[in-house]
Amino acid sequence: MGADGTRPGARLYEALSAAALPEGVTLRPVECLSACSQGCAVALSAPGKWSYVYGRLSAHDAAEILAGAARYAACADGLVPWRERPEIFRKQSLARIPPQE
Amino acid sequence: MGADGTRPGARLYEALSAAALPEGVTLRPVECLSACSQGCAVALSAPGKWSYVYGRLSAHDAAEILAGAARYAACADGLVPWRERPEIFRKQSLARIPPQE
Repeated sequence: MGADGTRPGARLYEALSAAALPEGVTLRPVECLSACSQGCAVALSAPGKWSYVYGRLSAHDAAEILAGAARYAACADGLVPWRERPEIFRKQSLARIPPQE
Repeated sequence: MGADGTRPGARLYEALSAAALPEGVTLRPVECLSACSQGCAVALSAPGKWSYVYGRLSAHDAAEILAGAARYAACADGLVPWRERPEIFRKQSLARIPPQE
């Protein structure tokens, strides 16, 4: 928690909300991603695509998260080429889930 | 790897394949769930439901995984009441992802 009692997830959400969202990206706050030991987490998901969950994030990562989300939104199956993923996505993946077919 | 070179994930898949699948449950092997540091992992997902990823599993957990999958299949939103989840699902969740709405 911050000195003002704000939770890290709320601060990350605030940082993401303050930015212009990339085309095709919507932002949705959730209470819990069941990744308690991994700090702040975000999930990327879309119909027909692989879903990803990333952890150990903070409000400082907002710009990089949005850059990665833009790549994901532009990619038909959600499998963004490795070199095009931001470093936080390459190193801080908690899990991914196949598309529902 | 086992003495015969079989990977743990392949052994888990074999154990799950050998069992009778609960109603509404289908089994699909995947190459990678991006949870490298967490041993064998399984994901539960279905349209309109929360998706879950569990880790640190082995072939010995097959029966409990299938019991948990049966509860999940029978539950409209994927949010199985805590006490009805097998212990491995209560303690070994890596992440969950909200339904795509």
